[in-house]
Amino acid sequence: MLGLMMNEQLTITSLMQHGRSINGESEIVSVVHDNPRHSYTQAECYDRAGQLANALKKLGLKEGEVVGTLAWNDYRHMEVYYGVACSGAVCHTINPRLFPEQLVYIINHAEDRFLMVDPMFLPLIEAIEGTLTNLEGVIVLASEDSMPTTKLKNVFCYESLLDAESSEFDWPELDENTACSLCYTSGTTGNPKGVLYSHRALVLQSYACCLGGGMGLAAHDVALPIVPMFHVNAWNIPYSAALAGFKLVFPGSKMGDGESLQRLIEEEKVNYSVGVPTVWLTLLTYLRESGKKITTMKRVGVGGSACPLSIMKEFEEEHDVETITGWGMTEMAPLGSFNMLKRPREDYTQEEYDDLRVRSGRQVFGVQMKIVDESDRELPWDGNAFGALKVRGPWVVERYFKHDDSALDDNGWFDTGDVATIDSDGVMTITDRTKDVIKSGGEWISSIDLENCAMGHGDVAEAAVIGIAHPKWDERPLLIVVKAAGSAVNGDEILQFMDGKIAKWWMPDEVTFVEELPHTATGKIHKLKLREQFSDYSFSS
Amino acid sequence: MLGLMMNEQLTITSLMQHGRSINGESEIVSVVHDNPRHSYTQAECYDRAGQLANALKKLGLKEGEVVGTLAWNDYRHMEVYYGVACSGAVCHTINPRLFPEQLVYIINHAEDRFLMVDPMFLPLIEAIEGTLTNLEGVIVLASEDSMPTTKLKNVFCYESLLDAESSEFDWPELDENTACSLCYTSGTTGNPKGVLYSHRALVLQSYACCLGGGMGLAAHDVALPIVPMFHVNAWNIPYSAALAGFKLVFPGSKMGDGESLQRLIEEEKVNYSVGVPTVWLTLLTYLRESGKKITTMKRVGVGGSACPLSIMKEFEEEHDVETITGWGMTEMAPLGSFNMLKRPREDYTQEEYDDLRVRSGRQVFGVQMKIVDESDRELPWDGNAFGALKVRGPWVVERYFKHDDSALDDNGWFDTGDVATIDSDGVMTITDRTKDVIKSGGEWISSIDLENCAMGHGDVAEAAVIGIAHPKWDERPLLIVVKAAGSAVNGDEILQFMDGKIAKWWMPDEVTFVEELPHTATGKIHKLKLREQFSDYSFSS
Repeated sequence: MLGLMMNEQLTITSLMQHGRSINGESEIVSVVHDNPRHSYTQAECYDRAGQLANALKKLGLKEGEVVGTLAWNDYRHMEVYYGVACSGAVCHTINPRLFPEQLVYIINHAEDRFLMVDPMFLPLIEAIEGTLTNLEGVIVLASEDSMPTTKLKNVFCYESLLDAESSEFDWPELDENTACSLCYTSGTTGNPKGVLYSHRALVLQSYACCLGGGMGLAAHDVALPIVPMFHVNAWNIPYSAALAGFKLVFPGSKMGDGESLQRLIEEEKVNYSVGVPTVWLTLLTYLRESGKKITTMKRVGVGGSACPLSIMKEFEEEHDVETITGWGMTEMAPLGSFNMLKRPREDYTQEEYDDLRVRSGRQVFGVQMKIVDESDRELPWDGNAFGALKVRGPWVVERYFKHDDSALDDNGWFDTGDVATIDSDGVMTITDRTKDVIKSGGEWISSIDLENCAMGHGDVAEAAVIGIAHPKWDERPLLIVVKAAGSAVNGDEILQFMDGKIAKWWMPDEVTFVEELPHTATGKIHKLKLREQFSDYSFSS
Repeated sequence: MLGLMMNEQLTITSLMQHGRSINGESEIVSVVHDNPRHSYTQAECYDRAGQLANALKKLGLKEGEVVGTLAWNDYRHMEVYYGVACSGAVCHTINPRLFPEQLVYIINHAEDRFLMVDPMFLPLIEAIEGTLTNLEGVIVLASEDSMPTTKLKNVFCYESLLDAESSEFDWPELDENTACSLCYTSGTTGNPKGVLYSHRALVLQSYACCLGGGMGLAAHDVALPIVPMFHVNAWNIPYSAALAGFKLVFPGSKMGDGESLQRLIEEEKVNYSVGVPTVWLTLLTYLRESGKKITTMKRVGVGGSACPLSIMKEFEEEHDVETITGWGMTEMAPLGSFNMLKRPREDYTQEEYDDLRVRSGRQVFGVQMKIVDESDRELPWDGNAFGALKVRGPWVVERYFKHDDSALDDNGWFDTGDVATIDSDGVMTITDRTKDVIKSGGEWISSIDLENCAMGHGDVAEAAVIGIAHPKWDERPLLIVVKAAGSAVNGDEILQFMDGKIAKWWMPDEVTFVEELPHTATGKIHKLKLREQFSDYSFSS
């Protein structure tokens, strides 16, 4: 028997309209190329989204078509989110840091009909224009006054387009499963894969983000997302602002600039922010060196990669700021878990608290997680067993864009590619990537744990662990070390140092020394390259 | 184009499973007839819901069938919520305060196949058993030891049924639009009407309840719902506990007992509670007279009817407790609005704050509201215009149970039957019931505002205002007054007192005096009876 409730759809349009009607006066502050501190309201954002929707309709954009963006976090990008998605079209956010050939690939693969481009990124498009098969026009996110000169054909000025239009737009009534935005993963192997988000997925995630046990943001908060809107919708903060009514502060291109961030935080009274550890390292370094403070900040969310405890301690001790880790991925739009304490802080000793707060946290309602062994048998939540982390939920990818095959396993779970433990409280900890873990005798060894352990030795500048084929155990760990300058340490000394700190059978079979390790563009150790480099390696014993 | 996200359904089952896996250790404390302080966990609740589902299956219950409950707020009632709804059947919560003929009507109308009954309510069923057309069995919510004697046929002991079953149950994969529970409105006219909630509606509302800008409850909170589980699912608090992991304290039959409530709050460290104003009046009176305190309490939510400012002030000044009003109705499952401040408290003067906090609040995301005039034209949100309050949203009724016609207007909105104003911040204030408002010359006059104004006169013990037919203005207000004991006040003196306090054209045309006013069972003025009483009245001028 079906319930008899209204069939109201969960759409970005309903979020946008809530932002207009209930949080209409809530501020949106932006750092933009043509204004160092632009400020307006949710209601004005709504009106301009309507102007944009009218302009795009006039240019011929239809429901289901794709519009790409190459833009920073600012109010115009927010208007594009709304104007495109609420028209029934798809907003494809593009990472400007991609290599030109990747840009060409994803713009053509997504069939972007128009590109909305910040002036700073115009050269990227000028360099590849001839290869873009579906592109009909480039809309420059600028006013008439700040329009750059360009040799691109079919270029439009964003503000001029809007000026010509009414803010009244007859927003279509969309099915909640309609696609609203598209984001490509930056896979290290193969072509990037597109994740096509639905309105429903992002609305549900906006609820989850604003839970008291999540970010807990309410109308009187002020949030600064220092994660790009071109990557998984700035972790959903812009939509959450429409829902909860908090003031939104967009840093524009200043996301890596400690001085600008500090000033923005102080002047706009920011009390909540999210970013990756690198951002916080930059900000804390600036604060330490300048002696400046962030007096209004209460909490920062951190994700993207594991957050060193030192960052958390410095935030807490120097700035009275609480750091909360979270975990997610592009395929989850991106939210998977928040590390909110289950019990009051005073129930934990400092040691327990420090051990706990660096972990990835507890799944937010909507996401289900499990860890499984190589036979897909579920592993216990005991904090020790670690296995492939699988997830499911209404904001988890089902199939990549234009892929025929499902992205899920036979039982309908998505394999995250991460290896994790989960403890009895449900606290999940990423221990490795599935492809980096060492499979030894049917059991798994975490390369990351071994690396961290080896790094504790004062003579080790950098360490990497990879699995090497082994006749009996399938794989065994090889520890690859860059010595500290001037050190004459040998392998046995390092292994002796590690003895007792890790399980006996985890101990690397050998240690080898190199001058330097290969790194990815984002500074992580390039394990794939390292495995290629050591593909002929065999243990001497 | 559709998004490519997983088609995961929003079900109570997923909430229950989240409660088990992520908040498995969260406590559920209950006052029960056979245990003054029962305590167990979300995980144990899950297991016992499985046992119940097995037992009901063995008794022959099928998906889509209805099970009635006559029970207090306690852990067994919670297990029934889960065991029934997650089996795909419907949990029909029955208000034991209904008259016998109403009980017969709704139990037969709902086609309750089984009734789950607290021992205290067995006499209610014994008195009407012969008239219950679909009833096959009564399950008494008791252990073998505490089973009462009864002449009812087909009686089962709840604990014995559970003892015989495994906790493993193969919960069906339900469509989120499946009905999960049924609650009848207690209409003052005609037969009660059933609202058939879907899994989707209650899951979405659970998200909304737990928003940082809503109740904001998180894992380390302790909540005491002093609103009955037999009426709109205790305002969704039980489900919210599974979502957020807070400790849940059920008061059993002690909901109107100030002493028990105070002890429960102190001993269980309750920091959040919800109830109607009468409950708070009872509690505050007890605290005042006993000199006892509620030291752990931080916030109380209040709804059901308008909350007097005096209650809020006493909570704040004597107990440092913040009071937050909300508004909703059975047809909205029940959440419509929370009166959370839009700006920080210090941005309001005491007068502004007092004026604001008694209002019904701002719509929570998911609910849309509008106010309209008699021609269904939308009225401005200026805090002055008042009109019929209409709502829509995924947890708003579309059609009453077994009614053929839609409950919505031609444009798909549900008319709440309330008259309200909305200000530019979106703050809604109920000013009257649509049927009580006086329609004068195409404009509306609030009967409640006039009554409150007249009550300000020291010689007025009680006042009621109804509309009387008028040849020119359609209706004009008649003020009906019960004088204070010994008073010789006359009508002109009361009208003079009101002059300047209300709009000139709102002034009652006449004042008439009565010995007493008719009241409803819940103590409100019975306007329907009053209108009947004055149906032949005509103005002398």
